[in-house]
Parts: sequence; structure tokens; C-alpha cells
Amino acid sequence: MPKNTSSDLQNQFANKAQAWSARFSEPVSELVKRYTASINFEQRLAPFDIQGSLAHADMLAAIGIISADDNAAIQQGMAQILKEIESNTLAWSIDLEDVHLNIEKRLVELIGDAGKRLHTGRSRNDQVATDIRLWLRHEIDLAIDLLQQLRHKLATLALEHAETILPGFTHLQVAQPVTFGHHLLAYAEMFGRDAERLADCRKRVNRLPLGAAALAGTSYPIDRERVAATLGFDEVCRNSLDAVSDRDFAIEFCASAALIMTHISRLSEELVLWMSPRVGFIDLADRFCTGSSIMPQKKNPDVPELARGKTGRVNGHLIALLTLMKGQPLAYNKDNQEDKEGLFDAADTIRDTLTIFVDMVGGIKVKPEAMRAAALQGFATATDLADYLVKKGIPFRDAHETVAHAVRACEDQGCDLADLSLEQLQAFHPSIEQDVFSVLTLEGSVAARKHIGGTAPERVKIEAQRVLDSGR
Amino acid sequence: MPKNTSSDLQNQFANKAQAWSARFSEPVSELVKRYTASINFEQRLAPFDIQGSLAHADMLAAIGIISADDNAAIQQGMAQILKEIESNTLAWSIDLEDVHLNIEKRLVELIGDAGKRLHTGRSRNDQVATDIRLWLRHEIDLAIDLLQQLRHKLATLALEHAETILPGFTHLQVAQPVTFGHHLLAYAEMFGRDAERLADCRKRVNRLPLGAAALAGTSYPIDRERVAATLGFDEVCRNSLDAVSDRDFAIEFCASAALIMTHISRLSEELVLWMSPRVGFIDLADRFCTGSSIMPQKKNPDVPELARGKTGRVNGHLIALLTLMKGQPLAYNKDNQEDKEGLFDAADTIRDTLTIFVDMVGGIKVKPEAMRAAALQGFATATDLADYLVKKGIPFRDAHETVAHAVRACEDQGCDLADLSLEQLQAFHPSIEQDVFSVLTLEGSVAARKHIGGTAPERVKIEAQRVLDSGR
Amino acid sequence: MPKNTSSDLQNQFANKAQAWSARFSEPVSELVKRYTASINFEQRLAPFDIQGSLAHADMLAAIGIISADDNAAIQQGMAQILKEIESNTLAWSIDLEDVHLNIEKRLVELIGDAGKRLHTGRSRNDQVATDIRLWLRHEIDLAIDLLQQLRHKLATLALEHAETILPGFTHLQVAQPVTFGHHLLAYAEMFGRDAERLADCRKRVNRLPLGAAALAGTSYPIDRERVAATLGFDEVCRNSLDAVSDRDFAIEFCASAALIMTHISRLSEELVLWMSPRVGFIDLADRFCTGSSIMPQKKNPDVPELARGKTGRVNGHLIALLTLMKGQPLAYNKDNQEDKEGLFDAADTIRDTLTIFVDMVGGIKVKPEAMRAAALQGFATATDLADYLVKKGIPFRDAHETVAHAVRACEDQGCDLADLSLEQLQAFHPSIEQDVFSVLTLEGSVAARKHIGGTAPERVKIEAQRVLDSGR
Amino acid sequence: MPKNTSSDLQNQFANKAQAWSARFSEPVSELVKRYTASINFEQRLAPFDIQGSLAHADMLAAIGIISADDNAAIQQGMAQILKEIESNTLAWSIDLEDVHLNIEKRLVELIGDAGKRLHTGRSRNDQVATDIRLWLRHEIDLAIDLLQQLRHKLATLALEHAETILPGFTHLQVAQPVTFGHHLLAYAEMFGRDAERLADCRKRVNRLPLGAAALAGTSYPIDRERVAATLGFDEVCRNSLDAVSDRDFAIEFCASAALIMTHISRLSEELVLWMSPRVGFIDLADRFCTGSSIMPQKKNPDVPELARGKTGRVNGHLIALLTLMKGQPLAYNKDNQEDKEGLFDAADTIRDTLTIFVDMVGGIKVKPEAMRAAALQGFATATDLADYLVKKGIPFRDAHETVAHAVRACEDQGCDLADLSLEQLQAFHPSIEQDVFSVLTLEGSVAARKHIGGTAPERVKIEAQRVLDSGR
Repeated sequence: MPKNTSSDLQNQFANKAQAWSARFSEPVSELVKRYTASINFEQRLAPFDIQGSLAHADMLAAIGIISADDNAAIQQGMAQILKEIESNTLAWSIDLEDVHLNIEKRLVELIGDAGKRLHTGRSRNDQVATDIRLWLRHEIDLAIDLLQQLRHKLATLALEHAETILPGFTHLQVAQPVTFGHHLLAYAEMFGRDAERLADCRKRVNRLPLGAAALAGTSYPIDRERVAATLGFDEVCRNSLDAVSDRDFAIEFCASAALIMTHISRLSEELVLWMSPRVGFIDLADRFCTGSSIMPQKKNPDVPELARGKTGRVNGHLIALLTLMKGQPLAYNKDNQEDKEGLFDAADTIRDTLTIFVDMVGGIKVKPEAMRAAALQGFATATDLADYLVKKGIPFRDAHETVAHAVRACEDQGCDLADLSLEQLQAFHPSIEQDVFSVLTLEGSVAARKHIGGTAPERVKIEAQRVLDSGR
Repeated sequence: MPKNTSSDLQNQFANKAQAWSARFSEPVSELVKRYTASINFEQRLAPFDIQGSLAHADMLAAIGIISADDNAAIQQGMAQILKEIESNTLAWSIDLEDVHLNIEKRLVELIGDAGKRLHTGRSRNDQVATDIRLWLRHEIDLAIDLLQQLRHKLATLALEHAETILPGFTHLQVAQPVTFGHHLLAYAEMFGRDAERLADCRKRVNRLPLGAAALAGTSYPIDRERVAATLGFDEVCRNSLDAVSDRDFAIEFCASAALIMTHISRLSEELVLWMSPRVGFIDLADRFCTGSSIMPQKKNPDVPELARGKTGRVNGHLIALLTLMKGQPLAYNKDNQEDKEGLFDAADTIRDTLTIFVDMVGGIKVKPEAMRAAALQGFATATDLADYLVKKGIPFRDAHETVAHAVRACEDQGCDLADLSLEQLQAFHPSIEQDVFSVLTLEGSVAARKHIGGTAPERVKIEAQRVLDSGR
Repeated sequence: MPKNTSSDLQNQFANKAQAWSARFSEPVSELVKRYTASINFEQRLAPFDIQGSLAHADMLAAIGIISADDNAAIQQGMAQILKEIESNTLAWSIDLEDVHLNIEKRLVELIGDAGKRLHTGRSRNDQVATDIRLWLRHEIDLAIDLLQQLRHKLATLALEHAETILPGFTHLQVAQPVTFGHHLLAYAEMFGRDAERLADCRKRVNRLPLGAAALAGTSYPIDRERVAATLGFDEVCRNSLDAVSDRDFAIEFCASAALIMTHISRLSEELVLWMSPRVGFIDLADRFCTGSSIMPQKKNPDVPELARGKTGRVNGHLIALLTLMKGQPLAYNKDNQEDKEGLFDAADTIRDTLTIFVDMVGGIKVKPEAMRAAALQGFATATDLADYLVKKGIPFRDAHETVAHAVRACEDQGCDLADLSLEQLQAFHPSIEQDVFSVLTLEGSVAARKHIGGTAPERVKIEAQRVLDSGR
Repeated sequence: MPKNTSSDLQNQFANKAQAWSARFSEPVSELVKRYTASINFEQRLAPFDIQGSLAHADMLAAIGIISADDNAAIQQGMAQILKEIESNTLAWSIDLEDVHLNIEKRLVELIGDAGKRLHTGRSRNDQVATDIRLWLRHEIDLAIDLLQQLRHKLATLALEHAETILPGFTHLQVAQPVTFGHHLLAYAEMFGRDAERLADCRKRVNRLPLGAAALAGTSYPIDRERVAATLGFDEVCRNSLDAVSDRDFAIEFCASAALIMTHISRLSEELVLWMSPRVGFIDLADRFCTGSSIMPQKKNPDVPELARGKTGRVNGHLIALLTLMKGQPLAYNKDNQEDKEGLFDAADTIRDTLTIFVDMVGGIKVKPEAMRAAALQGFATATDLADYLVKKGIPFRDAHETVAHAVRACEDQGCDLADLSLEQLQAFHPSIEQDVFSVLTLEGSVAARKHIGGTAPERVKIEAQRVLDSGR
């Protein structure tokens, strides 16, 4: 196969304006070039762009649009380009605007006319949509795996602390005793839903836009189902106008990512609180903390704080994408180029954050005594006393009222409910008997909550095991 | 069953502070009462609150916590209350803060002690979570049905206009001819994905939080799976701390609603554009338009404009909920009360908007001549000429360049490609022959794009029928 | 002046479609009527609408467009309508769509043709813009006053606690001792900036759009400066297209409101933390707290939690308005009707929240002993030791390192820096002498930070007084 | 001054953990290091960091904390470092986490112990707050200048087209004729308010946080007013806790930037619309447009589309920052590190976008004939006819109704109002006379609107000149 001379190629692709047309009388200004170029941030798409091109070329050959030789040349040229990308030797050019033109130009340099035939029956509009979907599918798979790893770490720690009691808080006030294992499993539930959501999102990501061409499809008799099969897509996008302009999948992913970060922010808030000296329930391994340039005594939980802060950026990317798409007429508009940076950053943020949390959960040092001490304050078993009275036949609302009086008396005397004598308790209600003291202990309280979803150690062990048995 | 005297009941529930405890030394101020009350905006939950209470009472009776008589009284009392709600005769009291206490107080008025026993083994925390899920499940079902109705209307119009040609735009510049049916089906695809997303969201909505009680579960041997079955829930929430504090489902719904409104905003933008006199592709029925108080000639597409504007409020509610949950420690905090108004409004907005669009799509008057006239300008078949050249063996990039020169020449002469003579065309490339003129027609252009997803009339008919055959 | 007969009037304004034109062949559907009507949420604009109309009528009379008699009739009719609004006897009709048409129809009923002349030289587009600005100016003035009240309450409490020491936290870890007064004044600074921002926003709110008419101005020789003067506007909007479509002022207000709520959320977070039994620095008066329907012992800081949650809704409204305006072509589009509900709610939210916080700050019960006990833990004076060494000539970075070693040793021994003997301290650095113990006390530490902005009691008193001396 | 040996320095600052303390038993993991480091994105702060350090050193020398020799060495060392930064020869190290430690380490390498003394009386918390403010002040000044340039370009074009008539649209329907100059000046108003807002924001940016140290101030007798004067700050932050944790100024800037982009998005929407072949009011210079890789005839308005899309990212950054700060307790938390990337990107986005728009407005080619032709359709002067009738004594509402009937008749006959004969017009109202035709012309219509804010050519010239006379 004859190679073009390099001066021809220079001519062909010397700058992006020439890549599209002889129709322009004035070159794009340098500032415009920089403003509109995407090559600086989208190089991560290159391997996926090549993957898509190979499937496209293979299909073009199969239906006879290009020759087998052309296809072979394309496959070979692309293998070479992939190596250059991996070894960081491909020179990306801002003059060629985007990842597609950069790769195509290099391909033409390497294999000549066959390279020029690759773009038959497609457009950059469907090409970029395909690239992003291939890349995002990959990121989703990584994220689901990380979520499962994190759930396993939480469940492992939960099993260890199925019997460790701390105060359960509502409104940051002591509510009822719970087990620390139970508390950790709440997060395993959240991250489990996050993984479900990503799996649902993946279904809509994993559809092939290629073949939509610029917006209307192509006059070539392309075989889109073959391309879909080659690339592992579940379905083919069924409307070309929609295929090139749909960014739902990116927004849905960002919404899922925002929920992941929301859950991370809640766990982080608790880690920071628990590590505060006023609470002291846990310590984090030193490798997740930093010190101060001015206060020599400080050990700061930087990682959870920073993760909590990063919730903002993912919420921001979600809004950026929604704003971007609002009111856009069909089909492709240049606005859509703005879909990438936020999406990339959202994916990076959850990947980095989940990776670090998988490690950090293993670095939590639990302080059961501090937890227990805290649970003994604040009348955590008051509800148990009310339930005890109900079981004696008192209507719930009346029992509640009775216990409220008892709590108030304890507060006045500076003691806990378990510190009252039987006589004192009976003054609040005559049906209280000796067996009341078993329900006023922390262990009695948690053990009684053994139904599905309850905080009892026996239940926590079952649930933790269920998480551990779920595959990754 | 002895009823309490009314003065007792007065005493019992005279204001919300007494509903919870004798522990407070000072009543809540009027401003605080108003600030923290939710009864003004959550009355829509009442039927669902009652539905949940009935299932709870039934279960309590089944496991022997309350008597069959109590259960019967509760069922009877609630039936009465439901009637009062429907006839708008229940007097909601802000002193009773929320929908739960209002209903419970009325129940105790009606049936006495049995009413007081209803709250056994539950808390307002799991109760409200259950109510919202029941309500939202209902709204999701309505929305999915509306989306299907809208898709059917779009597909019906698409079938009618499978052969109507208008210019397909990218960047609001004429790109290639497309059929109007094809254009409409792009929206059927979008709303189809929206329905999928709601169905996925529904799976996570349809889980039972009841039984989580305040945060830790309850010491009663409750049968949560029975309650779930009674209420039609697919699953039981498996962690009580998570169950009372999870608002993922609301956020996921709002994200889906934001995408629905994003699609509505795009369709609205096009309707407004198409109805602008400069474009004139369609007219909207008068019943969706309004006039001007000052300009007597005006007919304004108010509905699509307002719908486009409403995208903002749903995006806003999504951000409101994400902000709300950010960094909240477990378990329930009062912040969560803020989950409702935005969620309600998001559901109302999509319900009203979809309902009105179902009607409005039927009120679109298409102007095929204006569409065709527009498609004849702007070199819409230039790509077809390039494809023609490629089929003659010219590499795509070279063919593209050749056509660009031809377009430029036409622009200079103020004519279209189809207006050039064969000789003129051959001056740009010698391999152009007489058969070129068939690809330069609008009909030829669209008919050639008949692969899956293409704009060809035959393909549009298949796809429109596919939508119509999909159930509602 | 002859009154129209009521049947004429019926005819005139029977429904909104007739208010604008005989040009429509089909009435607006009931759903569309409800969807597009604004009367349900904008009644609060009525007094401002009347105020604007009176100024407009006065100007029309002054330049001779309407007669003095007409003007007198309008002033009289409007006085009557205002009374009806205040006594809640005006029947608002959704058929008349908005507040303007409702009022105008009533005016025509009352005074006949003179009422019909009022709308000369204006449009609903400039009318509504004027109404919102008048209303918002009023709300801004209220909010600035509330912010000042809140600052005074904070400063009053700060003066009381200028010498109360608590640990200053960074990363929720003990950093250095600070005075509680100093901590409170940080919020006085924030709310001070908020008031500044509102005052700046007010300048841009306080410009007159009236006279822009529908979009282009009017052919009547109106005197806009007279109207501006009557209504107390600082300036006249200088471009009619901009005047009817500008909603910057609403967005700027929402951004300011979002910052107010952000500050409220931070204060709330601290109040909740401080009231948590693990911290116990303060108690909130019972009237700002609520109990639990299931846990009789609970006293929950509902007000700060709810306020923290309400940050979300204001952020949401800000995004809603920004989304709304994005990409709107000039001039007025119906999208703009969506500007109101979010804006109203943002204003209501800050007004209610600030009002309640003004009261709540006065209801904070400080627990100085708990604060002091906390400050004595966590090596709060480590920085002072480092500074001490620097003053002895050791470079800061070396001093920092030395103290870090000392802290680590204390941690190993379970003691504080002040518990080490002089010999032990000297083992870390020989230049430490007896005078070191004065810098290791809490009082010594805070007293030393007496420069502007420092935490020293003497500085706190000066700054608190400065706030108190600033007007309301 | 003796230099430290390089091995000492290695020891001193080899990695960030050692920069803060000997207290940690485990090094920070590589992932954590990367996750928490800010050096990759904050190098742009370096010149401002140095500027702040120089002012701080100068003050320390002035009050005798460091010697004049130390100060001289610091000034000299920093000059050297600045050169290294400018020549891109400083090796930034991720091990040193941030810009402050990187610079400080290099300083100690260059000048030894004097460098170690620089950090006396400050912390990274107040240092970074100072750096960001200095940088942002610089960006604000640039942005205000660009806004003024853009206003001048708009006003220049407005002067040229003070008499060019196009249809003014509301709801994208023809409303009334306006002049193109008037339309352009609407944007000059918007960008004028944007500049005002930035100037207001600058007041709050331009306050000195330095001296707040970590959170409580410092025990050194620092002279903050001297530092403020050196750095050109208007004021000194008056509360140390607030000074290190305040990010209001960044949020306020982002809100202002979001409004700038909102205005850009509106102008962009119009440019895209106007350049669409269906409208054809303008053409954009080729250098702001791009072509298509598949459609040779395309000339796409990429720049305004991309700019419109970038609105999303700035809205996103605003939400990111608000989310970040929500609910943060005092004082500094690591979350705050997340303030920078979004802020930097917001500043870059408006700078690049405004720069390119300044150039692009000059590249607008206006097509007055197309504008005029469009204005002649759509009954643009219907309002003028109504006003004409009012001036004849007919109440406005009746005149409006009369014209609506006339418009409807014209629509039925397919003509414009000016095409009706006097007899035909009189059939709608007998008081119409020959002079009516002057108000039915486009020129008559616009010329009549000559009050402040009106669209008349004479007014446009005055207003355009006013903008041009306003300084830059």
C-alpha cells in the first residue's frame, strides 16, 4: 500500500480547519482554537476511540465498503497508535482539536488512503458518543467493584463488632443503644443501593450510538448490530437524532455519583465526629491523617473531611450537565462538548474516594469502652421501659408519658433510669416489677431488637454474613 | 369499647408538646410551632398514612400485640377518618404538628384506648418514611403511564409524518434532510428512557421501612414481611438506622424528574422555535397559547415556554435534597423534614407537565410545505454527494474536500447543489455522472438512511409502530 | 362618572382570553389555565401592584394622558381594592390569570372607563417587573434589619462570655483555646457581610422598569423619572428590552440568601454539636426543641436542624432561577413566570429563620465548666509552647518539631503539657525555663492574642461593642 | 548567613509529614498523598503567596520579630524563587503537598534559618486565605476590564445600527419593531450590572485574613494594618475564626460569574438563532466558526454554542462551593481545600469567554435587509394602532380589542395592517383617519419610543454614547 508523501499529509490535516473544509475564508484564531479544543482533556478516550474504530472498520469490511486489505491496514495502524499512546510518544496537537482527528491523522500518516476510508459512514458526533459510552461502561464496572469491596470491609468490621454497643443518635441526642456492627451495616446498605443504581445506569450506557452518523444515519448499508456485538453493547440506539444528542446516561451517572458522595459525606461526618476528642469512639490510622504547620499536637482526619468536601464538586458536575442540556434543540450542538470534563471528574472522584475508603475502613481503631460509657448516659433505654409498660397492658401513649416523668425525675437527681430503685420506679407506675431491670440494661435492649433490620447482635451477624456472601 | 371522655382526650393531645412528653418546662413558641410544623404541606400523605397504619394494626393483631377487637376498632375508626379527609371535614391542627399526630388524635377521639395502642412498635420516623414511599410509588406509576401516553401520541404523529421532510439541524445550521416522524421519535426514545429510569427507581422506593421504629427496631416480635406483603412492597429495608434516614429514593426520583423536564425543555425549545414566524414549521392549537395585554396580534406559545422554565424548579429540588442530606450523621435528624415540599413539587410538576403535553402533541398542526422549503436551502444533501463520491472510490476525506469546494461555489452563485449542471459538477470531480441527481434530492437522501436508527420513512414506520405496540 | 353595567364588565373580562384578544378561536383549556396561572402564588404582590399603578396613574395625569378626574377615580378605586385585599374580601379568579388582571378587572367594576385607561403606556411585562422589585426591596429591608438584630444578640452574648474559654477546633480536633465571645463574634462577622451584600443587591433592585412597556417602550411621552421618584427608586432602567427580561436582581438576592442560610447552617451545626451530650457546651431553651413520639427522654434541637436543612431549599431556588434564565432570548418569555415561587420562598425562609434565630440566640444556656474542661484536654496550648521557643530564638520550624515530640511523649504518658515538670520539658529543649508555665495556661494563651481579630478577652470586648454600636 | 547543608534540609522537609510533626507513627500512603495534595492545581497562587510572605516578613522585621538581615535574605530568596517560577525551573513536589510548603522549603534551601523564621506568627490557614484573595482581586480587576471592553464593542456596533430595524420578539413571536442598536444595548446593560457586582464583591475580597494564624490569632504583637497597607487591602478581617474559614468571597464571586455566563448564554442563544438560515439576521466571522467532519457545507457557530454550554460549569462550581460550606463547624476544616479548583475554573471561564466575545462582537456581520423583511411580517405595529386609538379617546382595553379584530381579519386575508385601506380600517373603528398610516410604519413606530429606555434611534445614540463615555 503506497503511503502518502508527508507533504500531502501536511496538506491534508495541517490544521483542523482543513480537516473539515475548503469553505472557510479565514483561519480560526488561536484563542478560539484553544477555547474550542477538547484534546487537552479527552485523551483518556483514545483507547476507546480506537476500540470503536476497529469495530467500525471490521463492519465496513464485512459489508464490503472497504477491502479486507484496508481493514488489515487499519487494525495494524491502530495497534501501532495504541502502543504510541501507551508509551506516551504520540504527539497530540491542539490544531487537530480532538482525540478523533489526532488519531485519524496519525493513522493516515501510517497507512495512507486506507486511513482516509475509515471515517466512511460515521461522523465525529456518533464517534464521540460511542467513545464516552465505552469509557463510562468501564468506569461503572470499576466503581461497582469498589463499592462491593467497601461493603465487604464494612461487613467484616461489623462482624467483629456485632456486640459492641454505642448510643444510637437521632438529632445527635442519645436515642437508644445500638450495636456498632449494626451502625456500620447501615452504610453497607447505602453503598449496596449505589451499586444497584450504577448497574441500572449501565443498561442505558451500554447502547450503541455509532451508525447515527452526524444526525440522520448514513446512506451506507451499515450493520449496526454487528458493531454492537463486537463492542459488547446490549442494544443499538434506535434513533439517530437522539443517539448523537443524548447525554442522559452521563447525567444519570453523575446523579448516581452524587448519591455515592452523599453517602461518603455522611460516613465522613461520623468518622470526624467519632474521632473528635469530645466523642472519642474511634481513631483513624495515621496514614489517613495529617498534622498542622503551626499546632504540633494536631492529628487531623483530613481524608474524611476532604471526601466530605468533594461531595460539592460532584453535585456541581450534575448541575453543570443538567444546565448544559436544558433547552437544547436537536440534534448535536457544540454545547455538548462541555459534557466531558465534569463527567470525567465525577468518575475520578468516586474512584479515588472509594479506593481510599476501602483502605481506611480497615484502618478504623474502635474504642468500645468509650462507646459503652456514652451509651450509659442519656437514658438510652427509656423506650424499653415504655415498651415494658405496654406489655403490661398500658396503652402506648400513656406508657410514654409515664416514662417521660421518670426521666425528668432522674434528670433532677442526676442519675440514670437503671439507678432508680424498684420502689422509686413503682411510684411512676404500680405495674413495674423486678423484671424491669433486665430491660433497662444495654445488652437487654439491643438483644430484644432481633427482627429483620433490628440492631440485635444475632441479627447483625446474619446481615453482615449476607453482605460478605454477596459476590464482588 | 369505652370511649375516653372528650376532656381526657383534650388533655392527652391538646398540643403537640404533650404528645411527646411531660419532660418540657416551656411550651414551644408560636413561631417555632409554625416553623417546624409539616401539617400544612403533607396532608396529601394522609391516605397513605392510614393505609400504613391499617397494615401495621393488622400485623400487631396477627402476632397478638393488640386484640382482634382493637384491630377492628382501628380499621373502623380509620375508615371514618378517611371519609372525613375525603369530604374535607377533618380539622387539621398545627398544634399537632404533622399528619401522623393529627390522624392519631382523631382516632383516639373516635375509638379511645385502642387508638392509643396503634403506635406500638413503631415511631414517626419509620411511619413517615413508609408514607412517603407509598405515595411516591403511586406517583411513579402515574408518571410512567403518562410517559407512555406521550410516547404513543408522538408515535402516532410520527406515523402520519413518516414522509414529511424537514431540515435536520446541528448547531441550528441545516445539516441533512430528516423526516419529521423521525424527529418526533427521538423524543419517544427520550421519554422511553425516562420511563425505564422511573421503573428502576421504583424498585428502590418499594421497600418497607416500617419496623425500624425510631432508629433501632423494636422489642416487639413484629412481622415485617407480613406488613410488606399487605402493602405490596417488594422487600423489607434490612437495616433500621438506614431505613429511617434513607432518602436516596427521593433524590433518585428527583434526578429522574429532572431528566424528564430536561427532555421537555428540549421539545419545548423546538416547539417555540418551530412556531416562530421566522421558522413557521408548526402551529400550536390556540388552547395552549395566550395573547398579550398590550399587543393585540400576539399568539404566544406559553405552555412550552412555561414548561421549559419549570426545568429550573426540578433541578432546584434535586439540589435541595442533595444539599439536605450532605454530611448528615445517622440516624434521623429534623433536617429530613425538608425532604417533602421539593419532592411533592417535583412530582406535581412532571404530572401536570406530562398531562398537558399529552394533549398538546395532539394539538400540533404541521406545515409540511414550510418544512420542505427550508430543507431545500442550506445544501442539506452535501453529505449525500460526498457519500456518492466515496462509493465511486474516492477516499472519504478527499470527497469531503471536493464537496466543500462545490458548496462554496454555490454560495458564491446563490444556488443549491441540485441547481448545478452536470458539467459544473464534473468540474469539481470527473467521476460525477448523471445518477448524481437522484442522491441530491431530499427524498433520495432520506430514503437511503434505512438502517436501524436511520431517518428513512420505511424505518420510521417500523419504529413508530414499535412504540405504539409497547404497552402502557 | 358613569359606571359600566355589570353585564358589560362580565363581557369585558369574563376570562383571561378575552382580556387579551378576540383573536383566539378556542378557549384555553382548564388544565392550561391552571398550569399557566400565577394568581395562586403572587397575591402577595397586590399591594405593590397597586402602589405601582397609583404612581403610573399620577404620572399619566401629570403629562395629560388621563384627566385629573380619571386619576382621582383610580386613586379612590384602588384605595377601595386595597381595603378589600386587606380584609380578604376580594375574590381572586384564576380565569383572570394574574394579580394584575384581577386588580384591573375589579377597578373597572368599581370605576368604569377610567379603570380601562390605567393600562395606557404600560404592559404586564414591565408591571410585574416593577411589582417584584417593590416587594423585594421591602423584603431586603426586613432582612437587613433582622441580620442586625441577630448580630446584636450575638454581640450581647459575646460580651457576657468574653472571658469564657472553650477549645477552638480545626478539623473538630482541639487546636487552641479561644473565648466563647470570640467564637460568637465570628458569626456576627458573617451576618455582617450578609447585610452588606443585601445592601449592594438593593441598589440593583431599586431601579424602575416601568415604562419599558411590553419590550420597546411606549409611544406616549411618559415621564419615567417622575414615577421613579414617586416610588422611591434610585434609578430608571435604561433599556426597555433589558428591563422586562432582567431577573439578575432576583438571582443576586437568592445568592445572598443562600449565603445567609449557609452561615445559619454552620451555626446550627455547632449548636447541635454543642448540645449533644458528648459535648455538652450549651443547652437550648425548651421552646426551640421537641421531643419524640417514641423515646420519652428526648429533647431534640429541632430548630437548628430544620434551619440547617433549609439551606438546601435556598440553594435549590438559586439554581432554579439560574437554570430558568439560561439561554433565554430577549425579551420577555413565559419562562420568566417561574421566577416568583422560588424567590418568594427564599425570602420567606430567611425571614422566618432569622426571626427565630434572633430569639434562639437569647435562649442559649452556656455551660462554661464543660467548655473549660474540654479546653484542658488535647494539648490546646502546644502552639503557645512553640511560640515560646521561637521567642527564645529557635527557628519556628524547629520549635514546632520540638513540641511535637513533647506532645507525643504526653500522649504516651496520658498527661497534658502543663503536667510535665520543668525537667521533663527541658529534656525536649534546654532553653525552656520556669516562665513556660504561664504560656501553658488557657488564660495566658488567649490573653496573648490581643491584636485585631485575636481571641483575647480585651479584644472581644472591643469588637462586641463595635457591633453593638453599629446601627440597626 | 550560613546555609544549611542539603542533607539537613532533606531531613527537614523530605516529605510533608515531616513538615508538620514527629508525632505520626506511620507515613501517609501514596494514594492519600495524591488525594489530599493541592500542589497540582494551585501553582497559580505562587506569585501571590510570595507577595504575601514578603509583606509578612517586612512586618515581622518592623516589629522586631525577625532581624533586618533575615528580612533582606527573605526578600532576596523570594526574588530568586519568583524567577525560578517564571522560568518554570522550580521543581514542585507532591510530597510537600501545597504551594506554601514548596516555596518555604525552597526558601530554606536558599537562605537557611532565616527562611525557617518566616512562618512565625502565621499558619497555612491564614496564608492560603490571603493568597486566594490576592489572586481573586487580580482576576476581578481583569474581568471588570473585559466587561467594559465588551460593553464598548456592543455600544460601538449599537451606534452603527441605531437606525437598523428588526422585529422585537417576546415568546419568539414578533412583538414590536425595535432597533438593533437598542437590542445590543440591552446586553451592555447586563454586562454593566455584572461589572458593578464584581466591584461590590471586590470590597469583600479585599480584606486581610493574615494574622488569624491557625484560628485564634497569634501571641506575637503583629501589626496587621501594616500588612494590609503593604498589600493594598482595604480592611483587616476582624475575627480570626471567621478569617480562616470564610469563603463567602469565593461564593459571591462564583455567583457573579454565573450571572455573567447567564448573560453570555442569552447573547449566544440569540447569535445562534440569528445565524440560523431560517432567521439569517447576522453572520459570524469564519474565525469563530467551525465546520463538520462529515457535512462539507456546514459553518457552525461553535463559539457561542460552547460559551452557552459553559454556563453549566460555572453554575456547577457555585453549587459545589455552597455544598462544600454547608454545615461546616468552625474553624478551618480540610473540606475547604475543595474551594480552589472550581473557583479557578470559574475565573478562567469568564476570562476566556469575555476575551473571545470582545473579539467576536466585532466580527458580527449585520444583515439589515433580512431584519427589515422580518419586521414587516407579524403585525409588529399593532400596538401602535391601539395606542393611536387611545389617543383618539378610546379606553385602552377597548382599543386593544378593536385591533385584535383587525389583526384577525388580516390573518384571514393574508395581509399586514398597513395593507388595509382606510375604509377597511374604519370598519373596525370609525375614529381611524388618514394619519393612521404614519404610525403603522416601522420607522414611525420606533421613532415614537424616545423616552429614557425606549428604542428610538435618537435615544439609542444617546445611550450608546453614554456607555462609550464610561471609563474602562
